[in-house]
Amino acid sequence: MKIINDTIVAAAGGVGGAIGVVRVSGAAATTICDAVFRATGDGGALVDATGYSIRHGEIYNPADRVVIDDVLVTVFRAPRSYTGEDSVEISCHGSPYIQRRIIELLIGWGARAAEPGEFTLRAFLNGKLDLSQAEAVADLIASTDRASHDVATRQMRGGYSAEFTALRAELLTLVSLLELELDFGEEDVEFADRARLAALMGDAAERIDRLARSFSYGNALREGFAVAIAGAPNVGKSTLLNALVHDDRALVSDIPGTTRDVVEESIVLSGIRFRFLDTAGIRATDDRLEQMGIERTRTSVARAHVVLVVVTAGHSCAETIRNVAETLGGMSVGDRRLCIVVNKIDASDAELPSVSELATAIPALSGGDFGLLPVSAKFGTGIERLADYLVSLAAGSSLLQSDTIVSNARHYEALVRAAESLARARTGLSDGLTPDFLAQDIREVLHHLGTITGEITTPEILANIFSKFCIGK
Amino acid sequence: MKIINDTIVAAAGGVGGAIGVVRVSGAAATTICDAVFRATGDGGALVDATGYSIRHGEIYNPADRVVIDDVLVTVFRAPRSYTGEDSVEISCHGSPYIQRRIIELLIGWGARAAEPGEFTLRAFLNGKLDLSQAEAVADLIASTDRASHDVATRQMRGGYSAEFTALRAELLTLVSLLELELDFGEEDVEFADRARLAALMGDAAERIDRLARSFSYGNALREGFAVAIAGAPNVGKSTLLNALVHDDRALVSDIPGTTRDVVEESIVLSGIRFRFLDTAGIRATDDRLEQMGIERTRTSVARAHVVLVVVTAGHSCAETIRNVAETLGGMSVGDRRLCIVVNKIDASDAELPSVSELATAIPALSGGDFGLLPVSAKFGTGIERLADYLVSLAAGSSLLQSDTIVSNARHYEALVRAAESLARARTGLSDGLTPDFLAQDIREVLHHLGTITGEITTPEILANIFSKFCIGK
Repeated sequence: MKIINDTIVAAAGGVGGAIGVVRVSGAAATTICDAVFRATGDGGALVDATGYSIRHGEIYNPADRVVIDDVLVTVFRAPRSYTGEDSVEISCHGSPYIQRRIIELLIGWGARAAEPGEFTLRAFLNGKLDLSQAEAVADLIASTDRASHDVATRQMRGGYSAEFTALRAELLTLVSLLELELDFGEEDVEFADRARLAALMGDAAERIDRLARSFSYGNALREGFAVAIAGAPNVGKSTLLNALVHDDRALVSDIPGTTRDVVEESIVLSGIRFRFLDTAGIRATDDRLEQMGIERTRTSVARAHVVLVVVTAGHSCAETIRNVAETLGGMSVGDRRLCIVVNKIDASDAELPSVSELATAIPALSGGDFGLLPVSAKFGTGIERLADYLVSLAAGSSLLQSDTIVSNARHYEALVRAAESLARARTGLSDGLTPDFLAQDIREVLHHLGTITGEITTPEILANIFSKFCIGK
Repeated sequence: MKIINDTIVAAAGGVGGAIGVVRVSGAAATTICDAVFRATGDGGALVDATGYSIRHGEIYNPADRVVIDDVLVTVFRAPRSYTGEDSVEISCHGSPYIQRRIIELLIGWGARAAEPGEFTLRAFLNGKLDLSQAEAVADLIASTDRASHDVATRQMRGGYSAEFTALRAELLTLVSLLELELDFGEEDVEFADRARLAALMGDAAERIDRLARSFSYGNALREGFAVAIAGAPNVGKSTLLNALVHDDRALVSDIPGTTRDVVEESIVLSGIRFRFLDTAGIRATDDRLEQMGIERTRTSVARAHVVLVVVTAGHSCAETIRNVAETLGGMSVGDRRLCIVVNKIDASDAELPSVSELATAIPALSGGDFGLLPVSAKFGTGIERLADYLVSLAAGSSLLQSDTIVSNARHYEALVRAAESLARARTGLSDGLTPDFLAQDIREVLHHLGTITGEITTPEILANIFSKFCIGK
């Protein structure tokens, strides 16, 4: 663990703003800032300032009396600050040079440049946040749409942690029952009713399983729902995407630097981000190059939550769908949702296949549930229905209604490991293993769950989590 | 002029920071924020908050009770705020979505999205800043090095404005002397001593001229000193540049998005930015393509403040310099500084030309002042001296010692026009023109000077200035 009684400093504002923010935290925060700060008027020294108070003044270099900037300085006193320590926030003009100079001066007077996430790390170490809440802070800062914001907010506001705390409490009961039995092991007494143990374990397993299952959805909410658009060239894929973009009045363009992945197109519909994955035209072919394109399509489809198969309305419509289906046939659609989008219904020879025709055309999929949406991307017909369909697929999941959605890969991994240990304990129980073996497995479950909220942690876990934060948070 | 009694809102922080800042200004600032803000603990409504006070709480949507973010809210009361109006600064998590949502909510409750520079425009209209100070705010935010920061700081801190105010006061005395004469025009009395008028005008002309001359320097401090590196290929130009970059320990790389121009290379030496302009190899040639390259070199040299001619040390050294000089001979070096950099002095056949040899080799330049610096870019020899030489050229100017440096093209234009009007008045005076003509010319001088600090302004001038600001300032 790091030494945390020094005072750290970093720029906390973004690049290119009108206002810059330099953040200082640690026991010497006000003392160090006083060395380079001169309050205007009757504002006294910062060391004398109470928490939640503001001073107007100048940051200057005492060595040459050169004034760096006119600033507002806010003082926070432990524990009523973000980090739980004495803290100072300097609000200056948003110039890169000014922020750098202020930080250099403060370092010259004894502060240390903060490492990525170090303010939040201190908040965690000082008990202001648990680990999952700390991770939610990073997600919140990165959020660019309503869905990712909601997931991060829920996680940060503590309901998430409460679920894990409850689960751990239940498992601790289990362990204490088992250990009580161990203490009296010589006497061959079974304090813990085996049926009750089995029920408790079954309940915990169910809850862990539900949380783990929520990850695929939570991760999609955070990163955007992947939608693969498959179809032959010239079926109007781009026109369709443009139409979707224009359909949504609440659409907001990406702010540069916030998009995490390079994706073909990313749009927000009703507050939920969808990432459209480009795919090559699909048809049966012997051409090596074309086959490689189709292989790329398979990869896109495998990554997608929803697959839109776009075909052109017309007399060969059902036939085209059959071709696409044959090519797609070999791949597992799994729990991905398939939707046939019949485009160009404005054309004079437009002809829609019936659902039964489709079911015949796509034997591989006839058992599954798939959508059929006739649209005219050119004229915007049916586009709103398609947008609603995508949103309902993303938002309609019963998972959205539940309080706790796991969106963090680290938490998911811990849940999977917890589930494995719990499965071992359950097998052990039914196999009649002794309480010490059972308690050992349950302790492992507790360990894995504890890493999520940070009851259990190691310097490696912390370093790994906080190194992904930006500097200044 | 705009109606300014409404309440405006904008994001004032940059992109990608840990902390975001939403700024609200106007009479209804606290009322509007109260609609979407809920203080934690015993913090009351913002309308009841005194200036310079902070509340911790949440921004939420009253329509659906959804919490947008945990925030710190600072209240400022007129006139003790940046704009001079009641203002609120909301410090939130630096997520693009959160900042957008907060702004949307505030607009829904009666605020208006601020136009670029509108906060500073209000500060100007409310008398918190004069126009040249307001312009300095934008320069300060854009500053990336010590020199540009110093120029902007001086201009913002009022010494700059004081100089113009003093100059205007002097000219107003002149006008009143002339107008007094006009009032008594019938009586054919000369109240104003013609010699005194001439002295006053001469003094004002000198001051205006000095300020106008400072522009070339001020603009260079702000935008970076242009250094053209001329020389044949393979003389070690790139190695030289790299050596310069590594020589300066205080070197700071550009923060993305802050560089104004696309330049070949831009480095900061001792706090002053230098922009190195690429040039094609110079030699006498009949080749059309090569001549075009040399034409480009001429353009670079014409834009440069300093021209470095790089040659390789050796027996043909003086000859090479003669060749370069012949090609450069046709262009006016003017007040640009020329420096011959003799590179590769580490080579076994290294041979340095004497200054007198150079003077003979460069007849076109023998009258001028030029530097001669032997270096080994490869081994770093002499590089520090070259860096010092560049810094001394940039910083050593007597102009740097003066208080007022004009770095703003608008101010320069106003000074040039003022100088023209003043020259007319001086000619008129010596030609014995009547006081009404002279007063008219001096009024024009006052008008042009007044546009600099904003005593004279028009909606067009203001719109033009503030539209170049970023939103949120």
